[in-house]
Amino acid sequence: MPVFLDTAAADFEAQFSALLSAKREDSPDVDDAVAAIIADVKARGDAAVIELTAKFDRLDLTPETLAFTSEEIDAACEQISREDRAALELAAERIRAYHVRQMPEGAQWTDPEGATLGWRWTPVSAAGLYVPGGLASYPSSVLMNAIPAQVAGVERLVICAPTPDGKSNPLVLMAARLSGVETVYRIGGAQAIAAMAHGTETIAPVDKITGPGNAFVAAAKRRVFGKVGIDMIAGPSEILVIADRDNDPDWVAIDLLSQAEHDESAQSILVTDDAAFGRAVAEAVEARLKTLGRRAIAGASWRDFGAVITVRDLAEAAALSNRVAPEHLELCVADPEALMPKITHAGAIFMGQWTPEAIGDYIGGPNHVLPTARSARFSSGLSVYDFIKRTTLARMTPEALKAIGPAAERLAMSESLEAHGLSIRARLDRLNEDAT
Amino acid sequence: MPVFLDTAAADFEAQFSALLSAKREDSPDVDDAVAAIIADVKARGDAAVIELTAKFDRLDLTPETLAFTSEEIDAACEQISREDRAALELAAERIRAYHVRQMPEGAQWTDPEGATLGWRWTPVSAAGLYVPGGLASYPSSVLMNAIPAQVAGVERLVICAPTPDGKSNPLVLMAARLSGVETVYRIGGAQAIAAMAHGTETIAPVDKITGPGNAFVAAAKRRVFGKVGIDMIAGPSEILVIADRDNDPDWVAIDLLSQAEHDESAQSILVTDDAAFGRAVAEAVEARLKTLGRRAIAGASWRDFGAVITVRDLAEAAALSNRVAPEHLELCVADPEALMPKITHAGAIFMGQWTPEAIGDYIGGPNHVLPTARSARFSSGLSVYDFIKRTTLARMTPEALKAIGPAAERLAMSESLEAHGLSIRARLDRLNEDAT
Repeated sequence: MPVFLDTAAADFEAQFSALLSAKREDSPDVDDAVAAIIADVKARGDAAVIELTAKFDRLDLTPETLAFTSEEIDAACEQISREDRAALELAAERIRAYHVRQMPEGAQWTDPEGATLGWRWTPVSAAGLYVPGGLASYPSSVLMNAIPAQVAGVERLVICAPTPDGKSNPLVLMAARLSGVETVYRIGGAQAIAAMAHGTETIAPVDKITGPGNAFVAAAKRRVFGKVGIDMIAGPSEILVIADRDNDPDWVAIDLLSQAEHDESAQSILVTDDAAFGRAVAEAVEARLKTLGRRAIAGASWRDFGAVITVRDLAEAAALSNRVAPEHLELCVADPEALMPKITHAGAIFMGQWTPEAIGDYIGGPNHVLPTARSARFSSGLSVYDFIKRTTLARMTPEALKAIGPAAERLAMSESLEAHGLSIRARLDRLNEDAT
Repeated sequence: MPVFLDTAAADFEAQFSALLSAKREDSPDVDDAVAAIIADVKARGDAAVIELTAKFDRLDLTPETLAFTSEEIDAACEQISREDRAALELAAERIRAYHVRQMPEGAQWTDPEGATLGWRWTPVSAAGLYVPGGLASYPSSVLMNAIPAQVAGVERLVICAPTPDGKSNPLVLMAARLSGVETVYRIGGAQAIAAMAHGTETIAPVDKITGPGNAFVAAAKRRVFGKVGIDMIAGPSEILVIADRDNDPDWVAIDLLSQAEHDESAQSILVTDDAAFGRAVAEAVEARLKTLGRRAIAGASWRDFGAVITVRDLAEAAALSNRVAPEHLELCVADPEALMPKITHAGAIFMGQWTPEAIGDYIGGPNHVLPTARSARFSSGLSVYDFIKRTTLARMTPEALKAIGPAAERLAMSESLEAHGLSIRARLDRLNEDAT
């Protein structure tokens, strides 16, 4: 059973705080093992990667077979049904259209003192995407990671996707092809992250690494951060649904389960202004759990981390949601546009009952890589911004330097940075000489 | 002596690679000590912070004296000369004007299928800025960190600034006041980062921590990352100057020294298409080093990490600069606007001989917190983007769901995520029923 909370109850605050701080994930401490793997790949390159792949993925590779060949990818793509291919193409097209609109523009202007100021955006040169193997090998994640990089103008885009026992997912390879990926390496784990960060004889280093992964991958990304850029460290997924009584309890129940089925550590929370509706949704969840394929996972998640919270009104619902800062937020209310401005922290908002969260996982257009574990308080989902960076621009004229230089010189001297001050003073002196 | 390289030399590539990979910083391994400090602050709150401050800063505090009072800040501001105050105010005004232009706008549109898509930007609720004590206590850094947060709309902005032996910098306090900081705590080190991330009885937790610091502060920021957002982990500073012969060698020399004087690990590189000009600059550096106040630091940096590189032409200079990805880049050339588009990786560009880098440290307007250690390949300087986050928006109509839902359902099923598929199918079935 999930917890049932009511903001009108005396102990609500204590119970809600407990829900907020519940530890949903055991992070095994793999840091020493990961440090050793990274050092090994740095020292021995391909040889280390190949040995580690034999050990962890039971797959024998050579430098020549580290990457899929173009023919292998062709062959994989031919296995895919016409319908699956069309679905993947439509998803790619819609994700691309959304992210193209995200590309920001540079700016340049001249201020009253005559200083020209501004900034430029430029793409990262090379990016590496990690795609987990096995059950969590999702073609949709390939699109969501690679397309923003492609839209940003990244020149070289590679994927590392382990193929345990040699098994690969044709849809992953097709998604890679649809999104401009140059090379797909069949390696995974910390060794793949190390190879992309430091490079090997065969694998050229990249500048930015994104994509989800297990504890080894997460620890490796943390360690190579600084040498390369990384996206977020993803935690277990969560959804919060704010629903009024004018919803089909079954729809809301399935939406909650669509998060719960990801992972036993996932969290699904319903916030409603109608206690009876809340109970009806909980019953609908139980009914759906009887037949759902992934009922063991979804049931454990709902039992351990699920919650149904009754609130006085929708404003209170928004305030609670902001404290959760959920990765996914559904506003299943009559007027979602009116409620939306009250939401200050959420990864993605799905508005109205015709917008199940799953539409955003695949085909809506916005990215499905979103901040988890309350990090929407300070971070955003994946986007073109992850693959570009900003260079600031400044150009002084002699007049501008005369106008603002003396203040800079004074501040430099107050910080005891004499050469900073002198670099301005030498120029101002020349201007004064020239004037006399 | 700095190294002298020439792209025409046979061993240039080897020497340049060595320069690029030179390890400039010893990072002492303080991670275990920092982990213990964070655990202590988490467990014992104020008491731990107070004990650690007594130990490291030789300063006895109570929960009541952890923060400067408004009267203490008033008194500090009154010690400041009219000229210093005016300089700080002009800097704050110009930094604010630049960052106001950075604020991006949200977007919302409806696509041909009837799906409404878009995103909103919202500020982080609370941010904490770290300001080092002692020699590196720079009021300009307070402005550069706090003003972007203020412009972004951060509600609560606090500073932690250690005051070893009780010594504080009045200009730091004034800069805090000029940039909307609510509270300045006189604590530092890993204990300050822990207090801001986890909160204590007196110090409410924040969502984002920025600002430079020593090895303890850097290790603590790395550890609390995830619980809160952090900015970059700053390394030693660097400048690269691309200069043609039509420059005053002395000006370029001082510009190089203005970076070198920060830190013995700082790096200053001159790239010129005129070998004689390069030698003249090196001589001018030696001359300036005779009298410069911080000659011990600047001299060591120039000797150990300085470089003068002669290139065939400016295009080659740009290509080398891109491989360095310098934090600061001066284009002291006749037509900097023409060279600028060739620059693909740099934290900040200073264009033309009238724009010494120091102008950007204080008063130009752009931020002086910039990516170091070649990280301009994948990251940007501090900006309003560090204090806002993006929530994506999606709203389907029944028609839009009919148009794109089936493809999402298919992809969900191909990933064995049944509930994802069902959440769309249940709605599509209703639409089909309604239609019949």
